[in-house]
Amino acid sequence: MRMVDLIQKKKDGSKLTEEEIHFIIQGYVKEEIPDYQMSALMMAICFKGLDKEETAYLTKEMMYSGDIIDLSQINGIKVDKHSTGGVGDKTSLVLAPLVAACHVPVAKMSGRGLGHTGGTLDKLESIPHLSIDMSEEQFIKQVNDIQIAIMGQNGHLVPADKKMYALRDVTATVACIPLIASSIMSKKLAAGSDTILLDVKYGEGAFMKTKEDAKELARTMIEIGKSLGRDTRAIISNMNQPLGNAIGNSLEVKEAIETLNGNGPSDLLELCLIAGSHMLMQAHMSDNLIQARKMLQETIDNKKAIHKLKEMVKAQGGDETYIENPQKFKEAKEIIEVKSTSFGYIKDLHALTLGLVSMKLGGGRETKDDSIDYSVGLVLNKKISDYCKKGETLVYVHTNKGLSYELKEQILDAFVFSQDPVQKPSLIDDIFI
Amino acid sequence: MRMVDLIQKKKDGSKLTEEEIHFIIQGYVKEEIPDYQMSALMMAICFKGLDKEETAYLTKEMMYSGDIIDLSQINGIKVDKHSTGGVGDKTSLVLAPLVAACHVPVAKMSGRGLGHTGGTLDKLESIPHLSIDMSEEQFIKQVNDIQIAIMGQNGHLVPADKKMYALRDVTATVACIPLIASSIMSKKLAAGSDTILLDVKYGEGAFMKTKEDAKELARTMIEIGKSLGRDTRAIISNMNQPLGNAIGNSLEVKEAIETLNGNGPSDLLELCLIAGSHMLMQAHMSDNLIQARKMLQETIDNKKAIHKLKEMVKAQGGDETYIENPQKFKEAKEIIEVKSTSFGYIKDLHALTLGLVSMKLGGGRETKDDSIDYSVGLVLNKKISDYCKKGETLVYVHTNKGLSYELKEQILDAFVFSQDPVQKPSLIDDIFI
Repeated sequence: MRMVDLIQKKKDGSKLTEEEIHFIIQGYVKEEIPDYQMSALMMAICFKGLDKEETAYLTKEMMYSGDIIDLSQINGIKVDKHSTGGVGDKTSLVLAPLVAACHVPVAKMSGRGLGHTGGTLDKLESIPHLSIDMSEEQFIKQVNDIQIAIMGQNGHLVPADKKMYALRDVTATVACIPLIASSIMSKKLAAGSDTILLDVKYGEGAFMKTKEDAKELARTMIEIGKSLGRDTRAIISNMNQPLGNAIGNSLEVKEAIETLNGNGPSDLLELCLIAGSHMLMQAHMSDNLIQARKMLQETIDNKKAIHKLKEMVKAQGGDETYIENPQKFKEAKEIIEVKSTSFGYIKDLHALTLGLVSMKLGGGRETKDDSIDYSVGLVLNKKISDYCKKGETLVYVHTNKGLSYELKEQILDAFVFSQDPVQKPSLIDDIFI
Repeated sequence: MRMVDLIQKKKDGSKLTEEEIHFIIQGYVKEEIPDYQMSALMMAICFKGLDKEETAYLTKEMMYSGDIIDLSQINGIKVDKHSTGGVGDKTSLVLAPLVAACHVPVAKMSGRGLGHTGGTLDKLESIPHLSIDMSEEQFIKQVNDIQIAIMGQNGHLVPADKKMYALRDVTATVACIPLIASSIMSKKLAAGSDTILLDVKYGEGAFMKTKEDAKELARTMIEIGKSLGRDTRAIISNMNQPLGNAIGNSLEVKEAIETLNGNGPSDLLELCLIAGSHMLMQAHMSDNLIQARKMLQETIDNKKAIHKLKEMVKAQGGDETYIENPQKFKEAKEIIEVKSTSFGYIKDLHALTLGLVSMKLGGGRETKDDSIDYSVGLVLNKKISDYCKKGETLVYVHTNKGLSYELKEQILDAFVFSQDPVQKPSLIDDIFI
């Protein structure tokens, strides 16, 4: 078998066999196939696609390219959740303790953020002393003890994805549904969970720009999950405005704490209750969505959910008094109010712009090696459909380096006004089971 | 400027600017742009193409990536000819002396063969002691002295093409008209000739499989040539059967000698007279094709053409007595006749098959490092439209290692019979000026 012939085959639009995909991924990981052949193949895949079977084979080969986490020593059906990422997306911080408080084991591996979307690990690390580094044994023990653990992705997991993603990043082959799907799913599958709930976001602030692409990605990932025997579901959610009000690491943790205390923004709570209901059904803890939702709401009302977060923070070495008293989180030096220069109903709210402003304040990474300022970010005072008078505060900017004229203008431009009333946008467009 | 953004731009189907193409080619030659980005870009070009202007910019950048031959010290209008290659294509060996005998300076750089098509240099080197290595000064002096020189391509000419071609070869990006056109034309333009005549072959034994592709390639190359101020013309010729009767190095040289002596196969002679007539017009030696053709025919009749070949061989250190007495060429150990097992009119004659058989006998290279056996090859006794009885000789196989059952079967399978009379196929389909 020669790689050049396989590139030609895909370029011609033909289907690659299981053996051929095995040869490609094995050869690439072993460095027998060079980057320049892999990048040519991936570009051909961008144009010619991969069908269901090819995508499943690719995912399986990637998944088995490194270690596989064995969670069989954890009792019960393990659930995992993955979001394709968006601005202000702190869902995992709420959802994981919420579901764990219902006695469902949550063994979650997370990633860091890059660009305008934040990562769960970065947000968690804004809690002093909390560690996301642990051994597989510690991880399993913690889930068995308290039903919840969130750790950083292990170095030996899915090396094929690491190599392929780095190459895609510099060869304009990131935006390709079968490659995105196999990248996400190979990592989720290698992480060993029994079920996977996907939150596929679309819109300006998300990776997928259109609802159609989000749906295609969701369907592709569900097919992969099912072909490998995992109960996989997907929520298609709108990321045309930020989720909740807070953007920035400790600001988002505080909002997650408020939500677990029953005082969070309604869109964030709603998404968590819907996603959580499906996870409870996936874990066989409930056989209907209404009952599942009730169970989740109860853990908020009886404080079991917030307690679960505290337990996790403590187990991972963090200072759990920050969960009890969120005012302990270090504040940024200044909170600058950006006030509206227009009036009317807010029609559009550009999530991408606000995500980038938060990154530029120091809240996110432009490149992998950037460090993060946990205290900075934005808190929205107005969202789509709200009425705003001239001079009313649109955004509270938490900053350690002032606010340049340029960034202020960008924030103002992120809000689009209408003189006619505007409907609240739907949050969830579809759920694929 | 970042290469990843330029790859994305082309992937999206947008047009690259002159500055961007400059950045790409300069960066690639200087090794600032790695192979894995270049291969991704070239694959995107295979799918999205390059327009006229992009192709001209690319060719110019490639051309200027290394040395440019300055032929201004040669008197008169210098003509060059390039064939896209085919089976039994010994046109240059006939055409160059034919045109030079009409006092047109022919300063020709040639390449070696790979796969089923032979190269002019390999064929020439079957003449003992002939050298194709010379300095630019020697090359210019020889053309000024005797109007003709054929040398191997210089190492400092178009390094961008060398790097790009090697990469395309292993990334399935060879078959792409703008990349083929810029590769050929950058070398022809850097070689310094004033005019270029292209022989673009199509059919089973050629690089371009269809007439339409050949025409598109021809038009693309003419546009490049014209945009850089060179009189460029193209002949579209049929390579569905081998050109002439001989396939193999010294066998083809002998056939070229016969043709210059007026005793060659009619298809080879016809192609040379048509191509040569255009070259005479390009060199302003004639203002009409009929007169030009007459001038060429005269050089055959009065032996000036064959004398010109002898002069060139002598000037390049070769033994010119081989031109006078072609029987001096070393014969292969055996000449095996392959006889027809069918009868009828020959309808198809698979050039590619016969080219590959000749290569396997040792007459061509499978890989760049293979050496060549000059004496072996095939001589056809029947061509398309000929009637052949059962038991009549189809092919004379000149071999130093016998003839395996497998190769014999391949030769027999290359001939397709019809019981109805068959028309001679047209040799030239179109001429673009």
